[in-house]
Amino acid sequence: MRRFPTLVTMIWAILGGVFTMVQADEGMWLFNQPPTELLKAKYGVELSKDWLGHLQNASIRFNNGGSGSFISSKGLVLTNHHIGADALEKLSTKDRNLLKAGFLARNPAAEMVCPDLELNVLVSIEDVTQRVESAVKPNLAAVEAAAARRAILAEIEAESKKATGLRSDVVTLHHGGLYHLYRYHRFTDVRLVFAPEAAIAGYGGDVDNFEFPRYDLDFCLFRVYVEGKPHTPEHFLKVAPLGAASGELVFVSGHPGATQRLETLAKLRYRRDCLIPYSLARLRTMEAALLQYSATGPEPAARSATLLHSYANARKALSGQLQGLLNAELLATKAQQEANLVAHAKIQTPWQQAAQAVEAFRSFDRSYFLLELAHGTDSELFTIARHVVRLATEKGKPNGTRLREYRDSNRESLELSLFSPAPIHKGLETIRLGTALSFLAEQLGGEHPVVGMALDGESPMVRAAGLVEKTRLAEVSFRKTLAGQSAESLAASDDPMIRLALALDKTTRENRIRYEAEVEEPERQANGAISRLRFQLAGANPVAPDATFTLRLAFGTVKGYEAEGKTLSPWTTMAGLWDRHALLGTREPFLLPQRWLDGKANIPLETPFNIVSTADTIGGNSGSPVVNRKGELIGVNFDRNRFGLVRNFVYTDLQARHIMVDIRIILATLQSLYGAEFLVKELGN
Amino acid sequence: MRRFPTLVTMIWAILGGVFTMVQADEGMWLFNQPPTELLKAKYGVELSKDWLGHLQNASIRFNNGGSGSFISSKGLVLTNHHIGADALEKLSTKDRNLLKAGFLARNPAAEMVCPDLELNVLVSIEDVTQRVESAVKPNLAAVEAAAARRAILAEIEAESKKATGLRSDVVTLHHGGLYHLYRYHRFTDVRLVFAPEAAIAGYGGDVDNFEFPRYDLDFCLFRVYVEGKPHTPEHFLKVAPLGAASGELVFVSGHPGATQRLETLAKLRYRRDCLIPYSLARLRTMEAALLQYSATGPEPAARSATLLHSYANARKALSGQLQGLLNAELLATKAQQEANLVAHAKIQTPWQQAAQAVEAFRSFDRSYFLLELAHGTDSELFTIARHVVRLATEKGKPNGTRLREYRDSNRESLELSLFSPAPIHKGLETIRLGTALSFLAEQLGGEHPVVGMALDGESPMVRAAGLVEKTRLAEVSFRKTLAGQSAESLAASDDPMIRLALALDKTTRENRIRYEAEVEEPERQANGAISRLRFQLAGANPVAPDATFTLRLAFGTVKGYEAEGKTLSPWTTMAGLWDRHALLGTREPFLLPQRWLDGKANIPLETPFNIVSTADTIGGNSGSPVVNRKGELIGVNFDRNRFGLVRNFVYTDLQARHIMVDIRIILATLQSLYGAEFLVKELGN
Repeated sequence: MRRFPTLVTMIWAILGGVFTMVQADEGMWLFNQPPTELLKAKYGVELSKDWLGHLQNASIRFNNGGSGSFISSKGLVLTNHHIGADALEKLSTKDRNLLKAGFLARNPAAEMVCPDLELNVLVSIEDVTQRVESAVKPNLAAVEAAAARRAILAEIEAESKKATGLRSDVVTLHHGGLYHLYRYHRFTDVRLVFAPEAAIAGYGGDVDNFEFPRYDLDFCLFRVYVEGKPHTPEHFLKVAPLGAASGELVFVSGHPGATQRLETLAKLRYRRDCLIPYSLARLRTMEAALLQYSATGPEPAARSATLLHSYANARKALSGQLQGLLNAELLATKAQQEANLVAHAKIQTPWQQAAQAVEAFRSFDRSYFLLELAHGTDSELFTIARHVVRLATEKGKPNGTRLREYRDSNRESLELSLFSPAPIHKGLETIRLGTALSFLAEQLGGEHPVVGMALDGESPMVRAAGLVEKTRLAEVSFRKTLAGQSAESLAASDDPMIRLALALDKTTRENRIRYEAEVEEPERQANGAISRLRFQLAGANPVAPDATFTLRLAFGTVKGYEAEGKTLSPWTTMAGLWDRHALLGTREPFLLPQRWLDGKANIPLETPFNIVSTADTIGGNSGSPVVNRKGELIGVNFDRNRFGLVRNFVYTDLQARHIMVDIRIILATLQSLYGAEFLVKELGN
Repeated sequence: MRRFPTLVTMIWAILGGVFTMVQADEGMWLFNQPPTELLKAKYGVELSKDWLGHLQNASIRFNNGGSGSFISSKGLVLTNHHIGADALEKLSTKDRNLLKAGFLARNPAAEMVCPDLELNVLVSIEDVTQRVESAVKPNLAAVEAAAARRAILAEIEAESKKATGLRSDVVTLHHGGLYHLYRYHRFTDVRLVFAPEAAIAGYGGDVDNFEFPRYDLDFCLFRVYVEGKPHTPEHFLKVAPLGAASGELVFVSGHPGATQRLETLAKLRYRRDCLIPYSLARLRTMEAALLQYSATGPEPAARSATLLHSYANARKALSGQLQGLLNAELLATKAQQEANLVAHAKIQTPWQQAAQAVEAFRSFDRSYFLLELAHGTDSELFTIARHVVRLATEKGKPNGTRLREYRDSNRESLELSLFSPAPIHKGLETIRLGTALSFLAEQLGGEHPVVGMALDGESPMVRAAGLVEKTRLAEVSFRKTLAGQSAESLAASDDPMIRLALALDKTTRENRIRYEAEVEEPERQANGAISRLRFQLAGANPVAPDATFTLRLAFGTVKGYEAEGKTLSPWTTMAGLWDRHALLGTREPFLLPQRWLDGKANIPLETPFNIVSTADTIGGNSGSPVVNRKGELIGVNFDRNRFGLVRNFVYTDLQARHIMVDIRIILATLQSLYGAEFLVKELGN
């Protein structure tokens, strides 16, 4: 039961029009366009360049989809357990389940090297909008415009990479209104230092996900190495050992993944009626299959835990988004905002162009999702096969004309994942691929030529078992050999997974090219025009751009809220955990690790556990450091409550909160439960 | 991983054509058209009229979707625990969870009256095909033909009911080839006698469902009362205390729900590409929501257990069916069969008519499923509301023109369920209805007028919570009052669930009428013609009709099989249960009840537990008695293995088996674990 009792009435107040100055703690702001006026007006705070620069450089992007921060002079990194879980799973063996048991390296030699983790630290931002827009001539047909844009983006990135040696990504902001060049330090020698048991890191599991009150010790620690030695970052966050007080202003620095607040009404309706229902159908399919696989024994359970969490988490998030989009007032508000902007603009062309792009996409979106996004062949082995197949073709082309993921500036990151020595488990791959092939057939029908190619006459599960059994792509050396081959010699490969990727690639590429020309490019042009109208009418920085998995600054107040007739405190305590355990603790996901049962007396009952604020976050912010005015760490963000699920579309702070692990429970448990006093010392406490 | 390694090669042999005499143990045969020749030829057995009559009269239909049998002279009834679970749940209270704890009535006074269980015993069968066909004139338009058919069916049933006092249903066989009138004794005073704990009745849960080897004590016992005293049936089954031997011929007497072996290719393709994918999407949606609800505490878990099982079971069954239909050879075989029949028939008209009906259905099937089948408003309270609303209109019409469920012959059964005092749990109803409303919107899109009416501007979960909170339909007296009202006065009701049912009924009825005229009637005509062609070519009883949840006789051999390189014995034993428990017994669904752990020494390790045979069963056969040549009970059917999931479309006995609870484990546990020696004595042992 997710209710939004009086949220809708709030939405009117919040979003009465895009031209009213935002009064709430809204916005995932760019570090080069911080909300200076807003903070001054509402909180009387001025952020110095040094303060911002320090926080920016201490913030980390986890390329597997999360955030983190440096928290010691010796390169110690804090993130969420659920962001580190992928590495924990890859480092586990049949006899040593790091997710279940947790991990603590008592000395540097014991720190475990993660096979394929890439961390990025943002070094600089440069506005390249003019250069991008002038390269895309106004009267080009969509295909040529898309090609011109691809070429200029690749050129800018390649130039920057060559000049600085840094990872260089051009980021599309405001859905095409601005183009900024982000340069990053890349770190790939990342070692595991500490992780608690999954049972307490994710206490309450899927039941408590997106809920509050909450009791999750959702953090873990890594260490970055450079040239074999611990990295010594100039910027790292000091902890605030007393945490934050109720009513205190706090800042979140992290990498929110994606929001859709500035999307056109046509796109939001498409999301509500097509994209989200399709995505939910897919996620429920994968989740149901993995749940059963997981229940067949401890080893399948261990192997599928991370993937299962990612499907379940996305399913729950999208369910909440759909609830929001089906609320008539929410959409009516969006319609009113768009009507206001159209009325001021006195032209409708950009909105018509955006609506046409949506219509165009409707005619081939299933095929695009299933093939290009590989939902119909979901598995690590197929992903590898397709990279190998595409790399053979793409590497022979000039950099500017390649598919984006094969451009020179991305080569190192691609190879890190493509040649990862992380183990690939055949049982899990078979379930995953077999379920995906079934879903492909469910979506396209048994007579569809793509289904015929994918199944080759067999039932999906039988076909998947055969492909996984017979392919050699689990061997890294075999992948390297294939990746070195020309397209011609690869075409003769008898590896069945390579053959499948080859067979599907023609249709898949056609979808990709249609998408770029008929959807992505027109949407960028339309949204670019709409953004410029918005800038003209309301100033250069009227609202923060939608999230793009790049570094953003959010701010808010530590504050409780009312729900179901109760007033909730902004934080939970150890006492609350023991109450919940007493009520539900005999079954998963409410079982506690033995260490906690034995060590109950070691942690004072009043120790704050999880804590909420009104700051504006979304998925991707997982692991984001949360700091006070002095820039000191008061917690690590790990979730939103269910009222925050509509934040994809609208900001609200009536009941919506993001949820953090309080720094006080982190310090207390390291010290008194996990015997890691030396880590507390490293943090300067 | 469900594999059908060499099944496809078998299919060719089995179904080379419908004209070859069936050689395998195929068929769910009519009791008035038993497979006399086949049994004589293959097993040298002749079944006497008395033998058949005895078995027929000892067999029971559970109207909630299962089978059972009388097993004592005092009206003791044996069925599956999962068929009795619905009653167990309704009889549970907050403080007494009968599913979890099990139940044993030590004396008649302790037997618990089930609120709304209806059992049927088949008394006679009469062929009324001529009468039905002559009432539907050849040149009628579809709407008139459908009306004429509805009228004659109602007339026959009403006449029979009046003449005999017995429940009288005309059953459509061969999808329209034959019409038989079935007369039943109805029993509605049914009392709970014994149930084991759900943990052992459904040991292995969803993981082991449709799997073998298996260890499920999936039985429970009821007693039928008539006029306040235990019923004394003339026919009841005696048990065979030594069970069945490997290789022994056995018979299954039960109510298989539905098979699709005689469907046209067009319909099978529709099933593969539309019906099954849609159904899977729905089931996964409901299951995911209920799983989360179930995990919020012991009470939600207890309340949603039966429903959750039914969704999960259907999802797993349909997944297996889809695997079968996506196998290219299976469909090719079906195509060849149809081509053979067309070639012999020298006309294509019936197949064209059937294909047109499928095409017509494609254009409104979603709407039909969501509205008429109420998938978009899935809940007990909406079901009640719609019955009340429709009853008000239908009761004013002549019997022959009413929607079938409101015809006089069904009135008693309808009222039994409509006025059931079984508790309705608001939490569960809200989750169920909210999820269904979300699914409705996902399927039809947010702009659809039906979605607008159903949601009334609110998010689905908020809307559901409001409807469930405010309706008074949970009160039986309120239902009775409303059911007595005229359509006009009902239209003024301010009950919100009634208002929703009223708002949706216009569109819903249009769908129903279109379905009956454009799909059901043309399919019956087409299949009637195809059946007659099949009868002309291959004799009057060439194959058994597809299953219709009416009494059928199947036969087969107790026989193991090969799977994944291993030879499986036809039965499991207690020793195997302890092995499985040692491997997986620390987590659900592999936890054992304390009684079993304490009583381990009481049941010899070699006691047979579950046992398989080649006989032909399908869902609905759950609870079917299985007897030997002497008509003695050797077990109770409860499942198929995964290889049996394609039996909807083709019979195979290479690896496909149905699974029974062996009579020996039933007797041993009643005697030595549950302290129910008096029941063993009642069974004559």
